[in-house]
Amino acid sequence: MSNPASGPSAYRGRYNKPVPTTNLTIEDDEDFPEFEPFEDDVATEGAAPRAHPAAGASLSVQNVDMCQQINKPKHFTTDYDTESLVVRRGLEFLVRVTFSRPLSEQDDFQLEFLIGSNPSASKGSLIVVTFGSRHGGPWSGRIVETQGETLTLGITPRAEAIVGKFRTYVAIVAGSGLQRTSRDTSTDMYLLFNAWCPEDTVYVANEGERREYVLNDSGVIFQGTVESVSQRTWMYGQFERGILDACIYILDMSRMPITDRGHAVKLIRKGSAMINSQDDNGVLVGNWSDDFSMGTSPTLWTGSTKILQKYANTGVPICYGQCWVFAGVFNTFLRCLGLPARVITNFSSAHDNTGNLKIELIFKPDGTPDRRHTRDSIWNYHCWNEVFMVRPDLPSNFTGWQVVDATPQETSDGHFRCGPAPVAAIKDGLLCHPFDCGFVFAEVNSDLVCLKRDRFGTLSPFRVDKNHIGQAIYTKAVGNNGHMDITHTYKYAQGTPQDDRTMARAEEYGCARDHYELVEDQLSIVITADQCFMGQDLNLVVQFQNKGEVARSVQAHLAGSVVFYTGVLASHFKDEDFTATVPALQMASVKMKISAQEYMPHMAAQVCLYFVVTGQAEDQSLNSIKVVEMVMPRLTMTVQGQPQVKQQMMVNVSFTNPFNFQLHNINLFMEGPGLMENRSHQYSVLEPQASFSWVEMFTPRLHGLRRLVAGMDCSKLTQVWGVVDIQVST
Amino acid sequence: MSNPASGPSAYRGRYNKPVPTTNLTIEDDEDFPEFEPFEDDVATEGAAPRAHPAAGASLSVQNVDMCQQINKPKHFTTDYDTESLVVRRGLEFLVRVTFSRPLSEQDDFQLEFLIGSNPSASKGSLIVVTFGSRHGGPWSGRIVETQGETLTLGITPRAEAIVGKFRTYVAIVAGSGLQRTSRDTSTDMYLLFNAWCPEDTVYVANEGERREYVLNDSGVIFQGTVESVSQRTWMYGQFERGILDACIYILDMSRMPITDRGHAVKLIRKGSAMINSQDDNGVLVGNWSDDFSMGTSPTLWTGSTKILQKYANTGVPICYGQCWVFAGVFNTFLRCLGLPARVITNFSSAHDNTGNLKIELIFKPDGTPDRRHTRDSIWNYHCWNEVFMVRPDLPSNFTGWQVVDATPQETSDGHFRCGPAPVAAIKDGLLCHPFDCGFVFAEVNSDLVCLKRDRFGTLSPFRVDKNHIGQAIYTKAVGNNGHMDITHTYKYAQGTPQDDRTMARAEEYGCARDHYELVEDQLSIVITADQCFMGQDLNLVVQFQNKGEVARSVQAHLAGSVVFYTGVLASHFKDEDFTATVPALQMASVKMKISAQEYMPHMAAQVCLYFVVTGQAEDQSLNSIKVVEMVMPRLTMTVQGQPQVKQQMMVNVSFTNPFNFQLHNINLFMEGPGLMENRSHQYSVLEPQASFSWVEMFTPRLHGLRRLVAGMDCSKLTQVWGVVDIQVST
Repeated sequence: MSNPASGPSAYRGRYNKPVPTTNLTIEDDEDFPEFEPFEDDVATEGAAPRAHPAAGASLSVQNVDMCQQINKPKHFTTDYDTESLVVRRGLEFLVRVTFSRPLSEQDDFQLEFLIGSNPSASKGSLIVVTFGSRHGGPWSGRIVETQGETLTLGITPRAEAIVGKFRTYVAIVAGSGLQRTSRDTSTDMYLLFNAWCPEDTVYVANEGERREYVLNDSGVIFQGTVESVSQRTWMYGQFERGILDACIYILDMSRMPITDRGHAVKLIRKGSAMINSQDDNGVLVGNWSDDFSMGTSPTLWTGSTKILQKYANTGVPICYGQCWVFAGVFNTFLRCLGLPARVITNFSSAHDNTGNLKIELIFKPDGTPDRRHTRDSIWNYHCWNEVFMVRPDLPSNFTGWQVVDATPQETSDGHFRCGPAPVAAIKDGLLCHPFDCGFVFAEVNSDLVCLKRDRFGTLSPFRVDKNHIGQAIYTKAVGNNGHMDITHTYKYAQGTPQDDRTMARAEEYGCARDHYELVEDQLSIVITADQCFMGQDLNLVVQFQNKGEVARSVQAHLAGSVVFYTGVLASHFKDEDFTATVPALQMASVKMKISAQEYMPHMAAQVCLYFVVTGQAEDQSLNSIKVVEMVMPRLTMTVQGQPQVKQQMMVNVSFTNPFNFQLHNINLFMEGPGLMENRSHQYSVLEPQASFSWVEMFTPRLHGLRRLVAGMDCSKLTQVWGVVDIQVST
Repeated sequence: MSNPASGPSAYRGRYNKPVPTTNLTIEDDEDFPEFEPFEDDVATEGAAPRAHPAAGASLSVQNVDMCQQINKPKHFTTDYDTESLVVRRGLEFLVRVTFSRPLSEQDDFQLEFLIGSNPSASKGSLIVVTFGSRHGGPWSGRIVETQGETLTLGITPRAEAIVGKFRTYVAIVAGSGLQRTSRDTSTDMYLLFNAWCPEDTVYVANEGERREYVLNDSGVIFQGTVESVSQRTWMYGQFERGILDACIYILDMSRMPITDRGHAVKLIRKGSAMINSQDDNGVLVGNWSDDFSMGTSPTLWTGSTKILQKYANTGVPICYGQCWVFAGVFNTFLRCLGLPARVITNFSSAHDNTGNLKIELIFKPDGTPDRRHTRDSIWNYHCWNEVFMVRPDLPSNFTGWQVVDATPQETSDGHFRCGPAPVAAIKDGLLCHPFDCGFVFAEVNSDLVCLKRDRFGTLSPFRVDKNHIGQAIYTKAVGNNGHMDITHTYKYAQGTPQDDRTMARAEEYGCARDHYELVEDQLSIVITADQCFMGQDLNLVVQFQNKGEVARSVQAHLAGSVVFYTGVLASHFKDEDFTATVPALQMASVKMKISAQEYMPHMAAQVCLYFVVTGQAEDQSLNSIKVVEMVMPRLTMTVQGQPQVKQQMMVNVSFTNPFNFQLHNINLFMEGPGLMENRSHQYSVLEPQASFSWVEMFTPRLHGLRRLVAGMDCSKLTQVWGVVDIQVST
């Protein structure tokens, strides 16, 4: 509540009870009296409640065992580093209750599961489970086995149950009331979404996909450009200590009603708002500048755990994130709560435009870029998330992957969150369904429109490129670190009848699109570039093609800049005029070398160069854009020791400075879920061609194929990485 | 931006220019240089810009006249109390420009309209209007008349234009550049939505409706219960001094991008968030308690103007509102910006439930209400707004009235705003379209479910009432102060095939509904009550009906409470057991008198009594609910003098205390848009049967049928009203 004048007391005439919105901390320390007399008896016999029942009620509970060793493997929750039981809804789990004596026919008892303050049976936050003929609540119970005074009970939470941390009680019917176990945190139980349960909205049929999208705690995020894709390893770490509580803490901070927390649509929409700090003091503060002195540079994070742990410990937003950090942390949140989720990269992503389908670049009358009047930009890439689920709020054809985006941006809805938008709705242009489909549609489908601004300030289009935006959409492959191209799940092939139908629908649903009638250019330009290591010279080839029947002479201009990954100018370093003569029906190439001396002084923390070649041939204007992401040097990582759970090992991270200048203030960091917590190290200076070697010891907690990632950052160089994979045995 | 760490500078790498979000204050004091050299000339001739052009450029602008007397009547904006021109988009307005000499063939000029900081032609915030063959921007221009050196120009803004306050410039093409008029606030122009323009998304075909929904600056809001509807006069006052600026100020406070402000869907959704203070420091703080000592009681407001003026002057949320205040202020905001809007009252409104279609009332095993375990409540009434418009984001069948609700409530979407939800989507159960249709659907269609809670805490339904919620939906009639029943626009008749189809669809789209198989009760109860003046005894009749073939004896209980209008208990004052014997196939009535002495000490600021009769007849439980809103005494208002614009008149507000107790701390207040600004008066005490007479002078500003409303509030009595209508001539 932002306004102090409006506390909960201002709502006294509004709610019978305050709407419960916290799970981890509850207001009343006691859920129930340990002995609760039956109210109907009280009513019959007068106001005074009976004293504790005597004689006949000699039955009591000696022990409650949450059967972690049996439940966890069956529920795929063994990896969670927590003392409490973690189970998935819609699947039976066992609880073993030991009574003071074997039960007789007359004995009656029930289990009670409570979540949040003021739990209520009618709101699904107080569940009574019975094990006989007596009618109980919505979760079914059965006696699996009776051994003397010990009963093994099977409890199946509904597949729609609230997700979060429940408190467990056993109540015995004792004469005129219920005699309960006292509050015992060791019987607390986390209930998660269940991708293995066909009745759950987040059911995934394929076991390989479930293991990837729910259980994989590391992954890769694709970056760079579609011609030169780079991989960033990201450690999701959803099973690490404190992460599950941190995810519930985020929901508590959002004041999301407890009763809504079984609803995947509501929960992921809330999550997309809370992962960024805008509006709601959420997890991560966005920063797209080049000044990160007040926090950690977005490029320095190697995973989500440090961010989530720090947020949960302080309640203060963490500085700083950019799109892959938001997507990485959101992915941890989703997988941790049991939602099947993945990180997506859209190459050449249209952003922050006004909800139309145009990215407009403005050019001066002489054909050179008019930066002062250009408002739109194209991100080299943008990352978001997808969650796989049924959409109970929509027609059934929208079951499947849903786009959610936690990067703070002015969506059409004006709030800093986005989605869930069904990928199927985007593909078919069915933008009339919630949430934010039009915004995502524009990100992958906008036209690039080049406009010339005349001397009076009016604009005229001269080139439209329908292929530039949303060039490719990638995600990590299932079971390996390669990429999977999922562009076809978002779009039909350009020019097909299905694509035309999609575009027509999108316009019908308010996505403005201009239909310029431009004469087809006879001349065109394409720029190509070799892969280029940071610090080396870059070779560009500008290729002119002439489809006309007469030779043409082109007055051309090359502009070279360093840009942020958002396409926004960081520093301009090159302007060069040149001419080219292109014979009729032929091509002509001009080779241009960009020397390291030209661009290196301008790079700072950036890794992308941006080139625009514009040309004038009589009355025709032409242009072409090329983004080059530099290839960064890598850290070398090697491990020694027996890769086995609980056996100490050693890792060595080494690096040689390939540049002819000193590197200063070198920050190193390393992590590996299930292997080691976050480590860091500093070097103050590294001479040209000099090396360092950083050694750390660690002891694996989890088995299987695991990965360590290390990163390096210094004043003149960022985004230097290394990884090493380790097959850990049990 | 809630987080100080994330200022605009953190976005330097993200936007080419900051996204402009303020209209009333702009960052750069100068839009343009007064002389702007042509860039192409500069480029050709080198870096040095030319000096001011000499000789040939002797043409200059002597005067710009915004032709208010001609434009305002044509645009229906005469009533706005502002110095600037106010026009509606999509309709031509005139500007008269006087040059230094008559124009020749060679002369060229253009008009430029700018809104917000960093205006941009590609974003629609900088519009160039040309008047000859030269290609201009999206608004068309024509020369209407030439008289010597004076040109009368006709300018037609696009029907999709941005709404807000524009700055006007005239630029003359002078040799090598543009010579502009300097900034002149007297040529500022407000552009509004246009319900008279068929191309505008908010077009209304009927003139009577346009006058009611856009131009009527007062109205009535229905309250009470459907059996006893009361009218509250509300002064919208959208034309009063400062209100138009206040509405734009609200959008500025919301940081809504300027370029989105022509988009009715986005604008009204933003408005619904901003009228309440939650999340965003919007206009009004909600308070449903009985303590309003930190501000003004919601019942004290007579209209919107004081609230909006104070908010715009201070930027601090105003204390306090309840639903009709939120709806009244929102209606002013909407009509002021030109949107056709009305206030709606839904009687017996389901609220704050978890998105299912059930309002659950819990009863104890003995049949009496179990308040401790009941979470849901039914509002006696709830007010929201409707806006008439095309939904460009949806299929065309959703054109028409759209529900928007500014009362802060936890919607399914988790934010404090609601809508626009097409009324047509609610009627047909098409809840799969934005925004918040499911929430509104539940408000008008929920089932009332009575559940018995057994001694073990499990719940079983025993009565379902499908008619209790959304009993009727009213709005003010067009052209008079009567009510119009629009229930049929929200729902098909219960039990029709269309209604069944709607309910089936709603379930398909995630609205959970239980299908209890309950045996039809042979016994039922209905409570009826006479109209009752506050302070007099109330007569209730409890009627039992027996459809069975044997006589039945009922053990009954009457519980009487004072409730807030939200149905929440304020004070419980009566419990009475009684028995009734109902012959086979007959009815039996029990008359019960509730004396003034019983309820008066418990009323405080409330006006509603709530009765529940529960009955037990062998194994059958039955119950019935009755809400009685007390009839309040009224203020008497009379006027003297000639009702004519600019002629002083006198109004007399008088009241006689009808009670046998003193009234203390009497606050009186009065207003009438176009007649007088807010007035107030106090009396410290009024003896039983004593009277006062408050006289105020006023001078009408606007003609037509106008209304004065006065209200009174004191420690023991609220919601005392008086109105007087005045036909003012010109």
